[in-house]
Amino acid sequence: MALIVQKYGGTSVANTERIRNVASRVARYHAQGDQLVVVVSAMSGVTDNLIRLAKEIMPLPDEREMDVLLATGEQTTIALTAIALHKLGVPAVSLTGAQAGIVTDGVHTKAKIQNITPKKIHDLLKQGNVVTVAGFQGQTIDGQVTTLGRGGSDLTAIALAAALKADLCQIYTDVDGVYTADPRIVPQAKKLDEISYDEMLELASLGAKVMQSRSVEFAKKFKVIFEVRSSLNDNPGTIVKEETRNMEAVVVRGVSLDKNQAKITLVAVPDRPGIAARIFKAIGEANINVDMIVQNISHGTADDVGATDISFTVDKPELAKARAVIDGLRQEIGFGKVIATETIGKLSIVGVGMKSHAGVAGKLFDVLAREGINIGMISTSEIKVSVVVDLAKAEEAMKAVHAAFLV
Amino acid sequence: MALIVQKYGGTSVANTERIRNVASRVARYHAQGDQLVVVVSAMSGVTDNLIRLAKEIMPLPDEREMDVLLATGEQTTIALTAIALHKLGVPAVSLTGAQAGIVTDGVHTKAKIQNITPKKIHDLLKQGNVVTVAGFQGQTIDGQVTTLGRGGSDLTAIALAAALKADLCQIYTDVDGVYTADPRIVPQAKKLDEISYDEMLELASLGAKVMQSRSVEFAKKFKVIFEVRSSLNDNPGTIVKEETRNMEAVVVRGVSLDKNQAKITLVAVPDRPGIAARIFKAIGEANINVDMIVQNISHGTADDVGATDISFTVDKPELAKARAVIDGLRQEIGFGKVIATETIGKLSIVGVGMKSHAGVAGKLFDVLAREGINIGMISTSEIKVSVVVDLAKAEEAMKAVHAAFLV
Repeated sequence: MALIVQKYGGTSVANTERIRNVASRVARYHAQGDQLVVVVSAMSGVTDNLIRLAKEIMPLPDEREMDVLLATGEQTTIALTAIALHKLGVPAVSLTGAQAGIVTDGVHTKAKIQNITPKKIHDLLKQGNVVTVAGFQGQTIDGQVTTLGRGGSDLTAIALAAALKADLCQIYTDVDGVYTADPRIVPQAKKLDEISYDEMLELASLGAKVMQSRSVEFAKKFKVIFEVRSSLNDNPGTIVKEETRNMEAVVVRGVSLDKNQAKITLVAVPDRPGIAARIFKAIGEANINVDMIVQNISHGTADDVGATDISFTVDKPELAKARAVIDGLRQEIGFGKVIATETIGKLSIVGVGMKSHAGVAGKLFDVLAREGINIGMISTSEIKVSVVVDLAKAEEAMKAVHAAFLV
Repeated sequence: MALIVQKYGGTSVANTERIRNVASRVARYHAQGDQLVVVVSAMSGVTDNLIRLAKEIMPLPDEREMDVLLATGEQTTIALTAIALHKLGVPAVSLTGAQAGIVTDGVHTKAKIQNITPKKIHDLLKQGNVVTVAGFQGQTIDGQVTTLGRGGSDLTAIALAAALKADLCQIYTDVDGVYTADPRIVPQAKKLDEISYDEMLELASLGAKVMQSRSVEFAKKFKVIFEVRSSLNDNPGTIVKEETRNMEAVVVRGVSLDKNQAKITLVAVPDRPGIAARIFKAIGEANINVDMIVQNISHGTADDVGATDISFTVDKPELAKARAVIDGLRQEIGFGKVIATETIGKLSIVGVGMKSHAGVAGKLFDVLAREGINIGMISTSEIKVSVVVDLAKAEEAMKAVHAAFLV
């Protein structure tokens, strides 16, 4: 008899038929004698509809009230899921985030879990119930409704698995698991049986949209082993866990491609101390996330003082905002021209095995060179190498890299 | 500066435009320096949609889970209403029933309010906020979500007005107040400036669908004076309060017509002690509400023993169920034939002045006789006389009675 936390996302509970499917799966585990905590998201479309209503009234609605509003989405699903379990003869009780004992800080719309008191869940499990828990939400110590922000339901599941010392945590989604590359681009991509937290983190931050980084970080911190698998079939998924010696034998675990980045280059920036700090402080103050930053000697126009070129990438929707921030600094800093482009792709290879294998980056560059693909920016970490390439050649590049490293 | 509790029903908050209208009205009071607690229902259609989803899964869903499900409707409205107030520059904070300190018993889907701890509301009001409160809901002492059943939002408003010692309680609806008769049937009907709790109670139980009896009873018990008025205009409404000497000068306050009743007559029931008790115990056990009961000597078929005819009325949708219960008793009791009819109307005149005016019933019967309208059943209380007439003649009867007593 195992204690299992399962999480089902919005598409898995999109309508009452899907909710019944979820209930059937839960009932099968329950029939084996397992104890189940089922974390659910809002039915897909519900949250967007609530946001639309709020924005009809006010473009930037108050965040405390948005939390009160959006928390209703998951509350609806917990009740319907419990009812679907009853229909199958399975005793089930629903709990909101607050009722489940999930206490957060007071940062509305992106609250952090502070602690979980799972007594109520334990009691209900002991009485033989399946417990359905609203993902994405909690309450502050003084009873304010909060939500956890993007990826919040995954976080709820992983945090509950940690607090309950669950034997298993399953994240059900609409893909079979984590792949060596996006199968829509690389047909040869294979599903991974397992992956380390760090690799998963790099993939998450690289646009492989299986899970948000924060949930993986939380799992890593609390050593929660979890499985990413499909709610549409019974295939085993991908186990995410601490790296093992066995994992390190594989140099590259996967290839990812992020097409959602844009690049800005400041040509001929005066090479004075503090200039880069000034630029990225201004960008940060505008709440724009910067991903890659590369600085090199300029071959631009400033020739009397030393000058460098600085390039960085931001999420595509933030390009105009970033551009405006940079233009506002021209007077003060006095750089040359600014080149902004949206037609880039960020290609990355990830693998804990890289740490002990020299030459991975070299091989990557070589593969791209042989394909005639120019590299715009390079950035590396211990277990990752990322390159920016022309968007038009990005998928071709990805296939070549996947073939070289993973087939 | 007054402390005012306002309640807006589902049609008053049916969409974001209506919610903005509600906010405008609240803002006007707030600008006068009043303190406001705004109780809202679910947007019209939302509750029905949630019920539909639940019933798609299971025809008779668990009541605890229905409460978790339905409570989301009002929670959505409190947040949107608070946002609409922010849009007008009015500080506002939403509270669910639980957060507002509304503690109920554990009878899901029809919980009773046990007590209210309005500290949080008082604190928020003191800080200058309008407080939007979810109607229809509360929580048990151990944190279960409950709902109050039909008319629950009115009850929330009146109970909060009592707990907060509010200066004024306004129930906003889609009619201008309480009328001497339904204006759709009797064009001469006039809006009443005031009405006593007891009169309002009789009218409520007689099918004048302005408010549920339980809210009026609660108001009477806790001496909450409230006003029923329209959310669509600024006309003053009808004040509901304890009767005054002035009120008693008016013999008949209003005329009501309930077309939603059906009548069952058991002909030639053996006249033995305990028979009526047996019949109505069985009906009660089937959860069927009986309204009028009349018993008289039979001219039916049983002639060797003493026999009576027993007639009673039930809500029309329950007629078939009641009929089945009666048929099940035939063997045991041995009555003659059973006559069931849906084509009746129950016409009532109500007024606290009746207590001290003899002859009101006589005048009513006389009016009907002059119109050639036959009376099927009669039932009276201290401040009410009801008669059952043929449905086809019911509206004509109502007009005649209104003209005789109220013009």
